[in-house]
Amino acid sequence: MNSLLTDTIIALSTPQGEGAIGVIRLSGPKAIDMVDENFAGANLIKSEANTVHYGKIKNKNGEIIDECLATIFRAPRSYTKEDVVEISCHGSSYIIQKIIELFLSQGARAANPGEFTLRAFLNGQLDLAQAEAVADLIASKTESQHQLAINQMRGGVSKMIGQLRQQLIEFASLIELENDFGEEDVEFADRQGLKDLVNKILKIILELQSTFQYGNAVKEGFAVAIIGAPNVGKSTLLNALLNEDRAIVSDIAGTTRDVVEDSIQIDGILFRFLDTAGLRETTDKIESIGIEKTKEEVAKARIIIFVAEIEEDHLQIVNAYKEIPILNKQSSIIILNKADAFHTCHSYDVEEAVSTLTNRTPCIAISAKEKTHIDKLKKQLVEIAKNSKTQASTILSNTRHFAALNETKNSLEAVITGLDNQVPSDLVAMDIRHALHHLGEISGEISTDDLLESIFSNFCIGK
Amino acid sequence: MNSLLTDTIIALSTPQGEGAIGVIRLSGPKAIDMVDENFAGANLIKSEANTVHYGKIKNKNGEIIDECLATIFRAPRSYTKEDVVEISCHGSSYIIQKIIELFLSQGARAANPGEFTLRAFLNGQLDLAQAEAVADLIASKTESQHQLAINQMRGGVSKMIGQLRQQLIEFASLIELENDFGEEDVEFADRQGLKDLVNKILKIILELQSTFQYGNAVKEGFAVAIIGAPNVGKSTLLNALLNEDRAIVSDIAGTTRDVVEDSIQIDGILFRFLDTAGLRETTDKIESIGIEKTKEEVAKARIIIFVAEIEEDHLQIVNAYKEIPILNKQSSIIILNKADAFHTCHSYDVEEAVSTLTNRTPCIAISAKEKTHIDKLKKQLVEIAKNSKTQASTILSNTRHFAALNETKNSLEAVITGLDNQVPSDLVAMDIRHALHHLGEISGEISTDDLLESIFSNFCIGK
Repeated sequence: MNSLLTDTIIALSTPQGEGAIGVIRLSGPKAIDMVDENFAGANLIKSEANTVHYGKIKNKNGEIIDECLATIFRAPRSYTKEDVVEISCHGSSYIIQKIIELFLSQGARAANPGEFTLRAFLNGQLDLAQAEAVADLIASKTESQHQLAINQMRGGVSKMIGQLRQQLIEFASLIELENDFGEEDVEFADRQGLKDLVNKILKIILELQSTFQYGNAVKEGFAVAIIGAPNVGKSTLLNALLNEDRAIVSDIAGTTRDVVEDSIQIDGILFRFLDTAGLRETTDKIESIGIEKTKEEVAKARIIIFVAEIEEDHLQIVNAYKEIPILNKQSSIIILNKADAFHTCHSYDVEEAVSTLTNRTPCIAISAKEKTHIDKLKKQLVEIAKNSKTQASTILSNTRHFAALNETKNSLEAVITGLDNQVPSDLVAMDIRHALHHLGEISGEISTDDLLESIFSNFCIGK
Repeated sequence: MNSLLTDTIIALSTPQGEGAIGVIRLSGPKAIDMVDENFAGANLIKSEANTVHYGKIKNKNGEIIDECLATIFRAPRSYTKEDVVEISCHGSSYIIQKIIELFLSQGARAANPGEFTLRAFLNGQLDLAQAEAVADLIASKTESQHQLAINQMRGGVSKMIGQLRQQLIEFASLIELENDFGEEDVEFADRQGLKDLVNKILKIILELQSTFQYGNAVKEGFAVAIIGAPNVGKSTLLNALLNEDRAIVSDIAGTTRDVVEDSIQIDGILFRFLDTAGLRETTDKIESIGIEKTKEEVAKARIIIFVAEIEEDHLQIVNAYKEIPILNKQSSIIILNKADAFHTCHSYDVEEAVSTLTNRTPCIAISAKEKTHIDKLKKQLVEIAKNSKTQASTILSNTRHFAALNETKNSLEAVITGLDNQVPSDLVAMDIRHALHHLGEISGEISTDDLLESIFSNFCIGK
């Protein structure tokens, strides 16, 4: 892996397109020399770290490509812990291309996606979980995603995993020591102490894993399924929700085009509406759905909106609702649609009755067509999302981390079984090593080229 | 105008969208204070000019919005000649929005398009022609556009105009002095000397104006019209030209979507194909075109490609060509299409014959369908464009400058007429003042809010 670190890499670090400024970043042993050689202005080689210099970048024929600012960072005080130069030029695609071509011709290499962050990781600036959080941070579109990413980037997850790993390592070394003594049958490691520790760690892992459902929902958006009999107004409801909140989403400049077709942001939380189109073809009973895929989608939903017509007999509504097994597992909201032609007082009565009969499931009378009381529904969605928020200070949101914790858990359970059955210490040591390995994968103490490749290839170029 | 300069402005200076880095720029008296107040890291107020500092931007609740770099520029050593802070944050739309919102809530004002450059102009960092070149530079897509913009930004045009203006000002002050003496009939200003100077300036203005045709063609693209009888393969030829060169254009990352439908770049020069669709409906004689608009388009073209079928009798081709009056004025190329089924030696003969009979007009046999010899045509296009290149070191490319020079010319001609007819010195002085006014408009010594508004509103935000 380290052969990667001997060359100097270059990439545009700002988004493509016309703008006032474009920032081109070089990192590596020759970064400062290379820029200095083509820079008419201050002597960059002699300039101090963390200083900015005005000058002209000239091509090999001495023609000015642009008037630029060059910012000098010196190893190890830079993002990559290498020498770094950031060239801030006019945001013209032509200029950016010419500057990058110039340095490529001088031996710089075009950086791969995420390669600056990969170098930061390889040089110990941040661990793997923190590096992954950088990508999450850039992709964040809501307040809650942003908080999650910032906490992870600042080392929340890493610190917790690091502590677990450190405690295990001590025992591991004692057990390895026993193995070194071979036949002598000594016991350096306190078996009961080890068992207590492993149980403690297992408990922490379970707690951490329990935060994943929330963390993942924040990161990917809370999945919401809208179900109900045909023609009760499910599509109209979805449109009412989407239309109103598209405006909110587009307030965030530049994000609109990245937004998934059916996602909306309410109160800083992302909700993702699942495609339950299949449900629309069913008869009136939800469990009659033949389409397996739709069932799966609904099963994935963290919130289910059950839509019925308010004019229907409310006992029938309650019965239809109760016949849907999935609703026992997820949070649900009952929507009584088509309340526009209904008297308000009556609406309240039906809401109250249905809610009571369904074990206090939130029930809201709306008119999807007239867009009345949609705000109430949104409030309810936010409330469910916020209630599912874990109190834990460290929240797991990364699927890779969740899977690695699963592996760790399996190994640690094997350690407990081994200790209970007094298996030889070398076998126990092996299970501890496995556990350490999987924990190490999270923060990157243990990493393979494949793992790094799969993580950093999802980054943008220039990061 | 100067009331504008008392507040602190803020804008995202890098393009919208996800990227590794986003740069937010603040300029104005409170720029450094404002950032310092929300920056957990170095004391920015005490930090030296042109230094970069790592820290965390926190919101009013003390929550971290992002880990950033803040670069400090101190007046007058900055782009705007004011205190400037550039915040380099993670390129997330969410983070950028939150940081800008934070500073807006602290009293910063969202910058108008081009307002940083407007401030640079108002504070004397660059004159108006240079400021306009900044926008041209960012919009440059070809080498020749880029060179033109760089030269103008570095003061080429401004310097020339400034010299002319300086010389006139001296005489103007002498003549104004005469007016102050009123009835006393003194002559401080040497009339013949003034006349010589005005004639010299007029000559320079004409020279400068003569570069405009080239400068404007470079900036907007060399206009090319493809004409000829129906079914000779004009569209196929255009497609052959466009298809091949689209790839070149899209090599410049990010530019593709801005490219005009029918523009191509060959050898660093932009060619813009005019819509001469109307010609396709005509009978075989080009002058029979009834559509006025198409005629106008063709008249605007700097290069005309006349397409005929190579199998046609070559005298007929020559006659058809000679009947088109417009071809005498512009550079033209004769294309003998459908040469695929034609023997190469024969092609050469026809090329030679047609070229000779049309006064050595370049003549190329091609097959638009098979895309053969398209490269020859492209070479010819580039040659015509390069031959039209003026030898002048200062090239005018801005329509506004051209118009202002026209006004200057009119005023100076009135000065000459006045001197010849011995009109009173106050009338001569008035014409000189007019000339000075119009020259001053180019570099911005003279500017109105309307003029500045119309110039800077075309800039991008953040520049």
